[in-house]
Amino acid sequence: MAITRAECQALDDRDPLREFRDAFSLPPGIVYLLGNSLGALPRHTPERVARTVESEWGVHLGASWNTAGWWDLPQSTGDRIAPLIGAGPGQVLAGDSTSVNIFKAVAAALPLRPGRRVIVSDLDNFPTDRYVVQGAADALGSYEIRDVGSLGSQDSTGSPDDALADALDDDVALVLLSQVDYRTGAMRDLAQVTERVQAAGAIMIWDLCHSAGALPVEIGAADFAVGCTYKYLNGGPGAPAYIYVAPRHQEAVRNVLSGWHGHAAPFAFEPDYRPAPGVRRFATGSPPVLSYAALNASLDIWEKVDMHQVRAKSVALTSLFVELLDELAPDLELAGPRDPERRGSQVSYRHPDGYPVVRALADRGVVGDYRAPDIVRFGFAPLYLRHVDVFDAATALAAVLSDESWRDEKYAHRLAVT
Amino acid sequence: MAITRAECQALDDRDPLREFRDAFSLPPGIVYLLGNSLGALPRHTPERVARTVESEWGVHLGASWNTAGWWDLPQSTGDRIAPLIGAGPGQVLAGDSTSVNIFKAVAAALPLRPGRRVIVSDLDNFPTDRYVVQGAADALGSYEIRDVGSLGSQDSTGSPDDALADALDDDVALVLLSQVDYRTGAMRDLAQVTERVQAAGAIMIWDLCHSAGALPVEIGAADFAVGCTYKYLNGGPGAPAYIYVAPRHQEAVRNVLSGWHGHAAPFAFEPDYRPAPGVRRFATGSPPVLSYAALNASLDIWEKVDMHQVRAKSVALTSLFVELLDELAPDLELAGPRDPERRGSQVSYRHPDGYPVVRALADRGVVGDYRAPDIVRFGFAPLYLRHVDVFDAATALAAVLSDESWRDEKYAHRLAVT
Repeated sequence: MAITRAECQALDDRDPLREFRDAFSLPPGIVYLLGNSLGALPRHTPERVARTVESEWGVHLGASWNTAGWWDLPQSTGDRIAPLIGAGPGQVLAGDSTSVNIFKAVAAALPLRPGRRVIVSDLDNFPTDRYVVQGAADALGSYEIRDVGSLGSQDSTGSPDDALADALDDDVALVLLSQVDYRTGAMRDLAQVTERVQAAGAIMIWDLCHSAGALPVEIGAADFAVGCTYKYLNGGPGAPAYIYVAPRHQEAVRNVLSGWHGHAAPFAFEPDYRPAPGVRRFATGSPPVLSYAALNASLDIWEKVDMHQVRAKSVALTSLFVELLDELAPDLELAGPRDPERRGSQVSYRHPDGYPVVRALADRGVVGDYRAPDIVRFGFAPLYLRHVDVFDAATALAAVLSDESWRDEKYAHRLAVT
Repeated sequence: MAITRAECQALDDRDPLREFRDAFSLPPGIVYLLGNSLGALPRHTPERVARTVESEWGVHLGASWNTAGWWDLPQSTGDRIAPLIGAGPGQVLAGDSTSVNIFKAVAAALPLRPGRRVIVSDLDNFPTDRYVVQGAADALGSYEIRDVGSLGSQDSTGSPDDALADALDDDVALVLLSQVDYRTGAMRDLAQVTERVQAAGAIMIWDLCHSAGALPVEIGAADFAVGCTYKYLNGGPGAPAYIYVAPRHQEAVRNVLSGWHGHAAPFAFEPDYRPAPGVRRFATGSPPVLSYAALNASLDIWEKVDMHQVRAKSVALTSLFVELLDELAPDLELAGPRDPERRGSQVSYRHPDGYPVVRALADRGVVGDYRAPDIVRFGFAPLYLRHVDVFDAATALAAVLSDESWRDEKYAHRLAVT
């Protein structure tokens, strides 16, 4: 073996992030490689949520809109997310779902480029990004969608973004891309792509769902960004998403979902909408306070984290996994980049029977997931995963493949949510 | 006195809903008349939320999308709300905020009436209804907004909806109204207004925020409805809202916020959007699961409730409050209808210094609220309010007015959230 389990243990012993594992409540006996889908529960989240339910709501009731800061949750939570994407205070608003925020960003961006009628969308993007753009393009005035395929999803030797360059012209109003590909983990150069898109006169919107919390994101010159908080950021299932709006655009753009929480004077109950100053105008309706409580509990952890340490450990873990499987299962086809600098915190393989493979692996205590049509996907959350976990996961996957236990009929049955 | 506290106590002793009070965790020593703004905490909600956090999320993690029914929450929760508004299974979807659902309903309704360019909006509607319509009218194709004022908000001797009749013509695509006025509690005849709007060829969208849970709503022939669940329905701060779509429209309409949760085959990860059958297409992004847990805990109570008993008690409580204040504070000006059959579960008064009055009253343990410019507002949640509470509230309000304690400088300072 390239590395022994004891050597992995030694790496864990000197891991500068090792103490963070105790901040999470992990189910015993499993290796959880789905932190890229639903992050683990921070240990102090139950108490934080209980306080919001029993005291803020149960005892103080409506007064908590002031005294517990409920009204300000979209901004105060956004300000805590901001450092994780290289943004500053007043630039990020937490709320709604990623899908709703994509709609807000697209609808805000299009009027910034009047006369341009094309939206560039990525065939390999997470489907909701595509679906929301399709809905928006139709509803907001018959915009044309220009699909570019396989952007960054291939481990090609050429630049993965050549297709993007070909798609850019004077008709393009905006480009919506993910920094990290949800299937393969391939990562784009955010700064370089932003520069290229803006050089063509278009607005750049980034989806950070698969990068924020996994690596140090530097939003830089980008115009807008959206992201979720329930993956690497451990905010809980369906936790509030967020939108970033570059300061230079904030006073010029409108939020088409112009609800009262984004009004300049919400308690004046004026008959007509007037946008609040700054990013607050991107608020819409009442915030789901219990879900914000859980998210804020996880952000208590994240504000103590050095994202460069996270990235270093992430590169080490994903590289270790790939090296082990190169040795243990040499026939397995890597789906994403081999160069760890070009991937997020995720490793994916192609397997024609990916679904039963993932289910058989779960029966051995290793939780990954499947993404149609043939992707077996493993996420590596550096705050709570150890090198020994990676060792155990790689050996379990190799065993499932070599003993063909995945062929058992019981693994063929598809669950509703895969 | 028209009635004594002892007589109120006797009424409480034979109240058929009296046992529901124990289902709620109410702070001691106060009379909470803000159940129309943020409903009280059901006693078993903390345990239900804790189970979702600690077990469904903490232990079972991503598997809970299947095993705990997370994926189906928008539909399953919607189906539990449906009976409260006179709807059936598959007609209501729970999710997002009321504001976002208004946008969805308006954007779905407009294409049903091609060629009609006018949206009728009510000057007295809750501001977010107006603001969202303004945003949608602009973004979705320069629709004209026709504002009708004072609809139903006056206790006039004539029909409160004459103004609506005048506003309806062949250009009107849709009408958005609230069943119960948030300021005055005035209630519209839902069936009659729906009939009148549809007779003019327009789509009727109802906002049920101030009526569902307060009285038996019969959605009847209406086209769409939206509502929140954190007021009378006790779902918790910012709990998921809902949208009702009449079955006859479901296969014809689109959800402009076309996220992957509303896709026909979300786990096929197809490149193009295809709407799910039925009301599910109105789902957008990932549901805030913790907030749904609290809402479902409250719906455990609501499914045991006879809404006709709720309405009978509501009429009794609001009538008692008005009668007591007629006697104790005869100069106080009632803002809503005197006829209890024409109001929701809310009584409002006009007072030029409404804000300090409400704050002084809170210092005596009676919690109401203020709505600009001059409304002092009291909500009566029949499941946890008693006749003695109404007695105590009315006498406290009369005392604050007669001793003028509200003139104390400390009550003048405005909180951010009023």
